[in-house]
Amino acid sequence: MKETIAPVAVDAMGGDNAPDAIVQGALNAARKGLPVVLVGGGAAIRGRLARLRRRTSLPIEVVHASEVVEMDDHPAQAMRRKKDNSIRRCFELVAQGRASAMVSAGNSGAVMAGAIFVLGRPEGVERPAIISALPALNAAPILLDMGAVVDCKPIHLVQFALMGELYARRVMGVAHPRVAILANGEEESKGTDLTRAAAAALRRSSLCFVGYCEGRDLLTGDYDVIVTDGFTGNVALKTMEGTARAIGDHLKGALRGSPLALLGGLLARRALSRMKRRVDWREVGGAPLVGVSGMGFICHGRSDALAIENAIRRAHQAAGTRFTDGIAAAVAPSAALLAAAEATPPFEPTDPRNPVRVDA
Amino acid sequence: MKETIAPVAVDAMGGDNAPDAIVQGALNAARKGLPVVLVGGGAAIRGRLARLRRRTSLPIEVVHASEVVEMDDHPAQAMRRKKDNSIRRCFELVAQGRASAMVSAGNSGAVMAGAIFVLGRPEGVERPAIISALPALNAAPILLDMGAVVDCKPIHLVQFALMGELYARRVMGVAHPRVAILANGEEESKGTDLTRAAAAALRRSSLCFVGYCEGRDLLTGDYDVIVTDGFTGNVALKTMEGTARAIGDHLKGALRGSPLALLGGLLARRALSRMKRRVDWREVGGAPLVGVSGMGFICHGRSDALAIENAIRRAHQAAGTRFTDGIAAAVAPSAALLAAAEATPPFEPTDPRNPVRVDA
Repeated sequence: MKETIAPVAVDAMGGDNAPDAIVQGALNAARKGLPVVLVGGGAAIRGRLARLRRRTSLPIEVVHASEVVEMDDHPAQAMRRKKDNSIRRCFELVAQGRASAMVSAGNSGAVMAGAIFVLGRPEGVERPAIISALPALNAAPILLDMGAVVDCKPIHLVQFALMGELYARRVMGVAHPRVAILANGEEESKGTDLTRAAAAALRRSSLCFVGYCEGRDLLTGDYDVIVTDGFTGNVALKTMEGTARAIGDHLKGALRGSPLALLGGLLARRALSRMKRRVDWREVGGAPLVGVSGMGFICHGRSDALAIENAIRRAHQAAGTRFTDGIAAAVAPSAALLAAAEATPPFEPTDPRNPVRVDA
Repeated sequence: MKETIAPVAVDAMGGDNAPDAIVQGALNAARKGLPVVLVGGGAAIRGRLARLRRRTSLPIEVVHASEVVEMDDHPAQAMRRKKDNSIRRCFELVAQGRASAMVSAGNSGAVMAGAIFVLGRPEGVERPAIISALPALNAAPILLDMGAVVDCKPIHLVQFALMGELYARRVMGVAHPRVAILANGEEESKGTDLTRAAAAALRRSSLCFVGYCEGRDLLTGDYDVIVTDGFTGNVALKTMEGTARAIGDHLKGALRGSPLALLGGLLARRALSRMKRRVDWREVGGAPLVGVSGMGFICHGRSDALAIENAIRRAHQAAGTRFTDGIAAAVAPSAALLAAAEATPPFEPTDPRNPVRVDA
């Protein structure tokens, strides 16, 4: 048991399988020495714990919260109106230092809203983002934002890059993360006004900024931190998910009717469904929030006990790095980088007579 | 031989395998009764034709063009400075009615620029787009724009929907195409300012507009026409391509070391590489331009003879539908639809006290 890190607060009420799978996942984590605080309906949690656990010496606390944020609740309204909800209580434990991080499989918008309301943002942070770990074969690139900030300005992308790079170094242990902006081509002239402004600023930063990457580069492992607005990030992640599913359907068709291919098909389908799960951002031990003053992990609503246990382990490990302490310093140069980039016109002269710009 | 439709103009000089693969593809199409005009270096084309063809009665013409647009030429500059380039000559044949459509595996930006310069746009069209056919299992949804218009305004998306729907009906033969806008969630409140404005206008149109779809819906076949800006479209298509490749790599790993799985693996890999090719927008017989006054098909730079033959067949078939004749009428309501939507506030009242909007 690691004494120096406070327990992870676990929202016992969030997700399709709450509270049973959540309590079970927390119990499994506790059995492996990771201290947890289960937050939610106290009687229900204690009843389930009593049924599940054999010995009482496990590092599990229970903190009561009388209200539950439903999946269709409006995030910000739920935070204001349901004062004693389990998500909010989790973040309060983090704010008080009684927990090192929180994990929830509940309403992801409410988790973000709760983080902003209760933890607040480190100085200088404009908008918090959600990080997705991408299922590259021999690497674990991260993509941000995957859905929190849909209408982005250049300052948001620049800060996502700075925060993501810090996360990759501190939490993922990547010595020199290669940072790229997702765009429609690799050349500097590609992208939108948004991506070009952000790229111009990041070229002046101390990051190892390699410019644009494309959709086909997301899973190669050639980049460690891939930056994009929440709209494009969400589309890209769900496109991966849909493509994996469609390939599975194609394969089923191709493998059907050939008895010798059955074993191969089984293996292929297993590999595919593993891939499909890995592509789903919320299943890989939760998606961390960045840009709030504390650690929160959003898990998939379908999370089972194993997913929750994984998220607790990741939250515990991430909290131990004291990642959030470095955010204010990381984002501090963002406005100056943008201002400097704006003050200098791009090197390449544009052709004012050119009436078309084709980016195919 | 179909007498009523003029031949398809084929850019003999465009693509990695030009002119050999292009001439071979055109020859194969001609052997199947599809008349073609090969455009490019006349002597080179005639020499190759003489080597390849056995009989001289095939419906093949050759039109000389002395210049070639290189892949790294600036599209619009190349159109202005290389007056006698093969792409431009192809479009001139279309404009003169000597060709019914054109096909090129050359610089795709230059093809778009040539189309705009030479053919022009039907009345009311703001920006032409490029259509991608998506490899859904039992359907052929189209996505537009896949890269031509990166910084979109609502009028562009609305017109892409109207033109795409016309294409699906006339060329693909879909009786009642279901049209959706690609976004980060299905609810009306999702999306960006851009997608919400376009969706509000399309809800007032006569199209079968079903609202937003997500990245995971691209390959289900649940939608016939999927509308997005060229930046997001490009990212989504390349993400499909990268995901298919990554799954192939995963599968190779999973299948390696199990001898019994080899046959299945082979089948799986074949199905995968077929999928990968189908995902590549330019390989499926070319990507049609819409919003110009004539038919042009952009083929992949790597196109082989079969890909060119397929593109010629598709171009011939599409030209026979006289699709472009209907574009001006299709886009005519676009501005009025947007104006009407802007004049009516959305039904759902927004909460002015809500400081966060989370779209995870």
